[in-house]
Amino acid sequence: MIERVRELLEQVAGGDLAPAAALEQLRHFPLEDVGLARIDHHRSLRQGQPEILLASHKTVDQVVLIAERMAVAHGSFLATRTTADQAEALCARFPGARWNELGRTVWLAGPEPVAELGRIAIVTAGTSDLPVAEEAAVVAESMGASVARVADVGVAGLHRLLAARAEFGQSDVIIVVAGMEGALPSVVAGLVSQPVIAVPTSVGYGASFGGLAALLAMLNSCAQGVTVVNIDNGFGAATAAIRILGSSRPGGR
Amino acid sequence: MIERVRELLEQVAGGDLAPAAALEQLRHFPLEDVGLARIDHHRSLRQGQPEILLASHKTVDQVVLIAERMAVAHGSFLATRTTADQAEALCARFPGARWNELGRTVWLAGPEPVAELGRIAIVTAGTSDLPVAEEAAVVAESMGASVARVADVGVAGLHRLLAARAEFGQSDVIIVVAGMEGALPSVVAGLVSQPVIAVPTSVGYGASFGGLAALLAMLNSCAQGVTVVNIDNGFGAATAAIRILGSSRPGGR
Amino acid sequence: MIERVRELLEQVAGGDLAPAAALEQLRHFPLEDVGLARIDHHRSLRQGQPEILLASHKTVDQVVLIAERMAVAHGSFLATRTTADQAEALCARFPGARWNELGRTVWLAGPEPVAELGRIAIVTAGTSDLPVAEEAAVVAESMGASVARVADVGVAGLHRLLAARAEFGQSDVIIVVAGMEGALPSVVAGLVSQPVIAVPTSVGYGASFGGLAALLAMLNSCAQGVTVVNIDNGFGAATAAIRILGSSRPGGR
Amino acid sequence: MIERVRELLEQVAGGDLAPAAALEQLRHFPLEDVGLARIDHHRSLRQGQPEILLASHKTVDQVVLIAERMAVAHGSFLATRTTADQAEALCARFPGARWNELGRTVWLAGPEPVAELGRIAIVTAGTSDLPVAEEAAVVAESMGASVARVADVGVAGLHRLLAARAEFGQSDVIIVVAGMEGALPSVVAGLVSQPVIAVPTSVGYGASFGGLAALLAMLNSCAQGVTVVNIDNGFGAATAAIRILGSSRPGGR
Amino acid sequence: MIERVRELLEQVAGGDLAPAAALEQLRHFPLEDVGLARIDHHRSLRQGQPEILLASHKTVDQVVLIAERMAVAHGSFLATRTTADQAEALCARFPGARWNELGRTVWLAGPEPVAELGRIAIVTAGTSDLPVAEEAAVVAESMGASVARVADVGVAGLHRLLAARAEFGQSDVIIVVAGMEGALPSVVAGLVSQPVIAVPTSVGYGASFGGLAALLAMLNSCAQGVTVVNIDNGFGAATAAIRILGSSRPGGR
Amino acid sequence: MIERVRELLEQVAGGDLAPAAALEQLRHFPLEDVGLARIDHHRSLRQGQPEILLASHKTVDQVVLIAERMAVAHGSFLATRTTADQAEALCARFPGARWNELGRTVWLAGPEPVAELGRIAIVTAGTSDLPVAEEAAVVAESMGASVARVADVGVAGLHRLLAARAEFGQSDVIIVVAGMEGALPSVVAGLVSQPVIAVPTSVGYGASFGGLAALLAMLNSCAQGVTVVNIDNGFGAATAAIRILGSSRPGGR
Amino acid sequence: MIERVRELLEQVAGGDLAPAAALEQLRHFPLEDVGLARIDHHRSLRQGQPEILLASHKTVDQVVLIAERMAVAHGSFLATRTTADQAEALCARFPGARWNELGRTVWLAGPEPVAELGRIAIVTAGTSDLPVAEEAAVVAESMGASVARVADVGVAGLHRLLAARAEFGQSDVIIVVAGMEGALPSVVAGLVSQPVIAVPTSVGYGASFGGLAALLAMLNSCAQGVTVVNIDNGFGAATAAIRILGSSRPGGR
Amino acid sequence: MIERVRELLEQVAGGDLAPAAALEQLRHFPLEDVGLARIDHHRSLRQGQPEILLASHKTVDQVVLIAERMAVAHGSFLATRTTADQAEALCARFPGARWNELGRTVWLAGPEPVAELGRIAIVTAGTSDLPVAEEAAVVAESMGASVARVADVGVAGLHRLLAARAEFGQSDVIIVVAGMEGALPSVVAGLVSQPVIAVPTSVGYGASFGGLAALLAMLNSCAQGVTVVNIDNGFGAATAAIRILGSSRPGGR
Repeated sequence: MIERVRELLEQVAGGDLAPAAALEQLRHFPLEDVGLARIDHHRSLRQGQPEILLASHKTVDQVVLIAERMAVAHGSFLATRTTADQAEALCARFPGARWNELGRTVWLAGPEPVAELGRIAIVTAGTSDLPVAEEAAVVAESMGASVARVADVGVAGLHRLLAARAEFGQSDVIIVVAGMEGALPSVVAGLVSQPVIAVPTSVGYGASFGGLAALLAMLNSCAQGVTVVNIDNGFGAATAAIRILGSSRPGGR
Repeated sequence: MIERVRELLEQVAGGDLAPAAALEQLRHFPLEDVGLARIDHHRSLRQGQPEILLASHKTVDQVVLIAERMAVAHGSFLATRTTADQAEALCARFPGARWNELGRTVWLAGPEPVAELGRIAIVTAGTSDLPVAEEAAVVAESMGASVARVADVGVAGLHRLLAARAEFGQSDVIIVVAGMEGALPSVVAGLVSQPVIAVPTSVGYGASFGGLAALLAMLNSCAQGVTVVNIDNGFGAATAAIRILGSSRPGGR
Repeated sequence: MIERVRELLEQVAGGDLAPAAALEQLRHFPLEDVGLARIDHHRSLRQGQPEILLASHKTVDQVVLIAERMAVAHGSFLATRTTADQAEALCARFPGARWNELGRTVWLAGPEPVAELGRIAIVTAGTSDLPVAEEAAVVAESMGASVARVADVGVAGLHRLLAARAEFGQSDVIIVVAGMEGALPSVVAGLVSQPVIAVPTSVGYGASFGGLAALLAMLNSCAQGVTVVNIDNGFGAATAAIRILGSSRPGGR
Repeated sequence: MIERVRELLEQVAGGDLAPAAALEQLRHFPLEDVGLARIDHHRSLRQGQPEILLASHKTVDQVVLIAERMAVAHGSFLATRTTADQAEALCARFPGARWNELGRTVWLAGPEPVAELGRIAIVTAGTSDLPVAEEAAVVAESMGASVARVADVGVAGLHRLLAARAEFGQSDVIIVVAGMEGALPSVVAGLVSQPVIAVPTSVGYGASFGGLAALLAMLNSCAQGVTVVNIDNGFGAATAAIRILGSSRPGGR
Repeated sequence: MIERVRELLEQVAGGDLAPAAALEQLRHFPLEDVGLARIDHHRSLRQGQPEILLASHKTVDQVVLIAERMAVAHGSFLATRTTADQAEALCARFPGARWNELGRTVWLAGPEPVAELGRIAIVTAGTSDLPVAEEAAVVAESMGASVARVADVGVAGLHRLLAARAEFGQSDVIIVVAGMEGALPSVVAGLVSQPVIAVPTSVGYGASFGGLAALLAMLNSCAQGVTVVNIDNGFGAATAAIRILGSSRPGGR
Repeated sequence: MIERVRELLEQVAGGDLAPAAALEQLRHFPLEDVGLARIDHHRSLRQGQPEILLASHKTVDQVVLIAERMAVAHGSFLATRTTADQAEALCARFPGARWNELGRTVWLAGPEPVAELGRIAIVTAGTSDLPVAEEAAVVAESMGASVARVADVGVAGLHRLLAARAEFGQSDVIIVVAGMEGALPSVVAGLVSQPVIAVPTSVGYGASFGGLAALLAMLNSCAQGVTVVNIDNGFGAATAAIRILGSSRPGGR
Repeated sequence: MIERVRELLEQVAGGDLAPAAALEQLRHFPLEDVGLARIDHHRSLRQGQPEILLASHKTVDQVVLIAERMAVAHGSFLATRTTADQAEALCARFPGARWNELGRTVWLAGPEPVAELGRIAIVTAGTSDLPVAEEAAVVAESMGASVARVADVGVAGLHRLLAARAEFGQSDVIIVVAGMEGALPSVVAGLVSQPVIAVPTSVGYGASFGGLAALLAMLNSCAQGVTVVNIDNGFGAATAAIRILGSSRPGGR
Repeated sequence: MIERVRELLEQVAGGDLAPAAALEQLRHFPLEDVGLARIDHHRSLRQGQPEILLASHKTVDQVVLIAERMAVAHGSFLATRTTADQAEALCARFPGARWNELGRTVWLAGPEPVAELGRIAIVTAGTSDLPVAEEAAVVAESMGASVARVADVGVAGLHRLLAARAEFGQSDVIIVVAGMEGALPSVVAGLVSQPVIAVPTSVGYGASFGGLAALLAMLNSCAQGVTVVNIDNGFGAATAAIRILGSSRPGGR
């Protein structure tokens, strides 16, 4: 299949095939079957972005195997939620891959840069929320966004948050990451008019119930137009932000 | 028993008995038994405050009966969570009683003013939280506090809250009433150093789960030293504030 | 304050003041205090959109009073979650207002059309999800979006959904409304690359637990980049979509 | 007792006793008591299937002891949810036993093949659901079903699922295994008319709450006639499928 | 479309078209769009069964409108979860329809009898579980099953249950309906080898939590191969049973 | 204090003090303060039973220290929920103590036998429930009951349970221990007229939610007069049974 | 069947049949089938107690019909959880029946007094818990217990509870009824050595979650040997107490 | 910044600047940015109390780094929820720091004593609650309170609690720490008139659900004016108590 994809792309590059037509054909290609996982190369091909591999619940061997097929298919991959063992095995196999330990990601960037889509601010309430924010940041960057990190601006110290407001004004989308009482997205959304994506984290203890408190708070936000993703789901927030950035580019869809 | 209490108080008034000694005696008086409910007159006698009657789960007849005994015992009562039927029956029986429809209270003030204890700010996030705030306000006033009401200062409109900050500075205790995501106590507690009592309300729908979302948020507040009472429990917040005010008076306990 | 706003707008209309400068000034205006609710006219002024009034938990009198102030301030309002009583009172007071019974909204459109922002597809799984979808539709339209309604395309009849796919291609944002098992957003998000906002509804019984089943399903979507709002929160989905549309306009923020 | 069972079976084999009559007698045999567990040999004898031993919550010694009694009684057993330690001990004791590491089963097949009952398709949404699917597959095979495995056809990539549809047409029962949002059974059941048994898995994180999200989704399926078993219960799904296959054979009960 | 379906059926009846071929064609017919609900006539046409209409969450007018289209399309319908108002309106419009008040169904049987599929025993633990059982019974009968009702055989009176065992032996599938502790399916499944479908009901109070206790009990059944449907979902149990019966007929799929 | 207790007992033994009078005096003795835990020797003295020490949440040192004080005070103790480390330390310190590994108890019996109170049947649904049952058995025996263990009689194999019925008839109280669906107490209580105490266990997985399913089932039992203790609380069931046995002895209280 | 029971009893009364033998025969009598409900007359015959009918979830007609059969069979019945309509219909049909409005029971006492079994103290924390306590009281009295009611002794007024302690000493079993935080059973069980049965009630609001808070508190009691029944289950507590009283009588089982 | 703070303080000390004016200036100082965490030195400067560092969810290196900045800024810090590794690293780096192993705190006291604020009684129900109580004690002491520890006075042994009552009378605020059924705060609050702060702990098992049972009980306390903090949140209780003590000092705010 890879050959057929290449041919197609060469036709496109040579002007023999309109991009829209090529894309249409790609949508109907058969799927490559990698033993266990059916990889969907289409998605990534559409936007020059890496195929993404959720490493949790998988063995080291499965992770390396799937990454290899992804790398063969189009020269890049991004693994999220990697354990140290998985990350080390991936970096040994792909010397060009970069391991982000805090964000638990391993990224093999493709040979060509991804399209620039826009700017995302990723805001965290506390130091302990950083791993989730970092996951979001790497995913967003691997897909073509530039990322501004705004850390440790919890609502109990409002002056810190207000000081960071300038940063918000320069971003197209704002991702707000918070555990405990999850109040930060409501306050941020009251200050800006851009899309705000809230990510509850499992930071907390006792009646935080593994992030449930923050999740419910964000779903009940009194600020208009806050949307929410799963607990600790930095990946989901980043891909939602990418959908928004992609949607707003000229000819974005 | 009433006679014995009166005697006691006359001795006190006449200087024949020190207040502390009288109070000590009162602690060991037998209880009056009103058929169904055993009323604890002691508590109110200690601070000139009305005995309080939770009207929910009771019939109109039960409510009136218990109120009568309270009124006989020391000339005042405060009924909370009254239905319109209960309130009308109480006002018909006690022409001097005041019905606060929003707060669902009926208060028969005693012949003598209660001791002045201090000032409580009662802050609400939205219009729909007002009934709970009003319940707290009436309870607090009936027990000797002066109350400042600060309404509709939800966290999505931070400028409204910051504008109200001056009021906080003049209060001894701050009660914060909020439904939905329950973020307001965290923000308020970050702005002040006084005690902050958070009251989650059942305002909201869907994943608010009857106030659970706000309750959990408040319990997980990232601001230091926020304490919480039950959902919609304006009464509990007010009595906790009264404990604080009483504790800080000279000779308060 | 209304006068000052009018002066400002006249200066803008007369070319004496740049819109951006006027907007900046508006951001610092004091708030009007309508007895109970502090109305934030700024938000609506920024984008020509109506101020929105959540009618639930409020009395008929409160709703009419607040609507009057909104209408005075800038000639329009949108009330959501209105009961029939509230809606009739509003329509009696404002003959130009339109009551959408299915969506439970009353909308008084302003004298000037709102800016056109883009197109939103609102997709429902079943007939019973229509009230929530309709609430989203009216809110979105009142704020400048055009809306395409795609009804009754639940996942158990995949052919219906696939037949509707063409519609998705013409929309900038897709709102997916579903109760019961809440699977529709995952399937839709697998078919499109635009932003997908999922709205769980309380449609169902038994182990749907008032929409909890659909909410959890949507938060756990295996499709990349689905974001979620509260159960039955058509309003929230629409305002989130408006944020996205506004963000993607040239000079949108 | 074993002797009496053997006599009985020899009588049957010799034509001296009708199978139905032998079965009836077996129903009234006393139970063998293996110290801790009372093994019900009847069930397996009824259909030539192995007695099944749930290894979790048991020590290695208990597991081997019970397996020995089962093997003596009728030459076969199937252990599910085995740890590696338990599996190794069983394989050391029974060289003929097969350990399925992915499915966490150890199966000692009996000397005679089990009756052929029909065909079961076992469909999984993602790679991480495979252990549960494999448990179901081994249980089903040990009881006489042939199994078709259809992996990695989650609803976010509908084309993969539609490509697998042909397989469904050749199966008598379809078991659908899915974690996260648990949407796959609804979609599959909309495509086929055979019985569909849904198995939620604990694959996911955050608001998946250990498989609760998938479980609720499956119970609320909008597709007609989907039934559900416990989270991660591949064993239960397989035995339910076997009941269905047995029921549909001529003289099946 | 109706005309084309009729032509098709006439061709079949005239021997000009094999049933399998006709069925294949039907699978690709376009959907009729009834304003709100897209009715899937295919499903019913496949097996001579009525299309089924879930009346809850719909207005009387919507219910009658949809029923009319169903009746036009192939002469029959079955409405479940009807209120008295809906039922009376349907019976007024369709004099041939039968209202089952206990089961809350209205059934307009088609001109030709449905195919006979087999026998279902529907077992209830207590009198209060009867409405759910009756819903299941009507749905099953409308689809071609004969139904044996076995009432009031809760596990606290084991002798009653054992007395009913003979009935179980004559049924192809057993539906067990129980509220409170939901223990009945485990006991029944231990007595029989047929498929057992468990229906938890919301009968109970306090810690039954609207049927949650029974639901969890059934999901955790220690008996092999019990499957479960949603709380109070008699409809789902019946359609699952019909899938099983259909699957076991010669040429059933 | 020990001396005073001994004196008292000597007076009783010498006939100088009536037992009832001695008991009355003991009720007013001051408490011994062992640094961390205030041990209540009275309770054990009342009935010749050992003081009981819950070892979980305590360090090895704390456990040994408290056990020493108990042993000094009246020559016996019973530790429950001991880890292996705690148990070994206790057995090293008290050579006469017996460690029950399955039940996780360490018991140092007193010099004199406890009073014989009656007979308790402890019934378990499956092998995995045995640790909880054993905890109950040791506690009950240490307090003067004789115990009959009836194992592995789950409701899916009714014949096993019915075979054990004779045992029930000889017991004064029946403790029923079951995990998973927790149905056994309902069935047992339908067969006997003695007190039935139900103990849910955390045996199970998935939707058993750590024993919640069994707990809810038992609380909703359709059998009259079943009472329930906490999940895995063998200790609580045994002490409740002892209260019953003690109550029914002549002069029992 | 009734005739055969009467004959039996006459034989017993005439000394021709030992009671134990008669009881044994009764255990094997066939069940009377009352259309909907299979009544178990055996239970009541064993101890001269009325058969009990749970009226909730039943229509007025069903309730009267079942009561008639019970009255015919042995001259008495007790209906619990009756609505006013049901109660009035029962009293109209059975002029000798007594309606306890607070406890929601209707009791037709049999011609002969029930055996005296012992004394039960029923203790309530607050006035609002009285309906549940009264249900327990009527059930207990109808079955042969004498009942002492101890009302309004909540733990926040410890002196009230301590004053009631004398009453506890004269009772064989203590039932403790409490809502809100459900602390009363722990305190009572620390004061007495008799069996303590805890009944959580749904009295409370907000985070009481319909009695869940009290239920959990009682299950986690730090006092030894407290057992618990379902929320608001006065009936269950009374029947459990009756099992205890019956068990302790000479020849009680 | 540190220099500027010192200058300021020197001006104050020299009488050149009023304390209130200095404090006002401090409120507007920029925040020091320590890489990850933005430390708010203001809070501690206001009352001579240490800045507090929540060590959980942080690495050893992060903890030491943040502690260093705190120590530089004003010579003291308090770390809570430290692991042994974190504590040892902190003590190695700061020889003057004190590690409280039970309370999991490391405290570096500042050069000058903190202001004396008043007396707090910290009451625990059982030995296992001590770590949470100790955390509260260290936090309170580091902030200027004197602490009275009252251990092991659970409600099942009321005499122990009543014996401790004298201690309550000498305290300004009472913190009550309890797991399991969480009843202790209700009983204590009924005995005293001071503020009572309830801390639920995760001590318990089964239906304690990690402290949820105790949390709900405390929120539903029938005693007036009990407030609650998060499960195991000794820190929060102490800081709330400090707010109360601070509020009651002359010029306290």
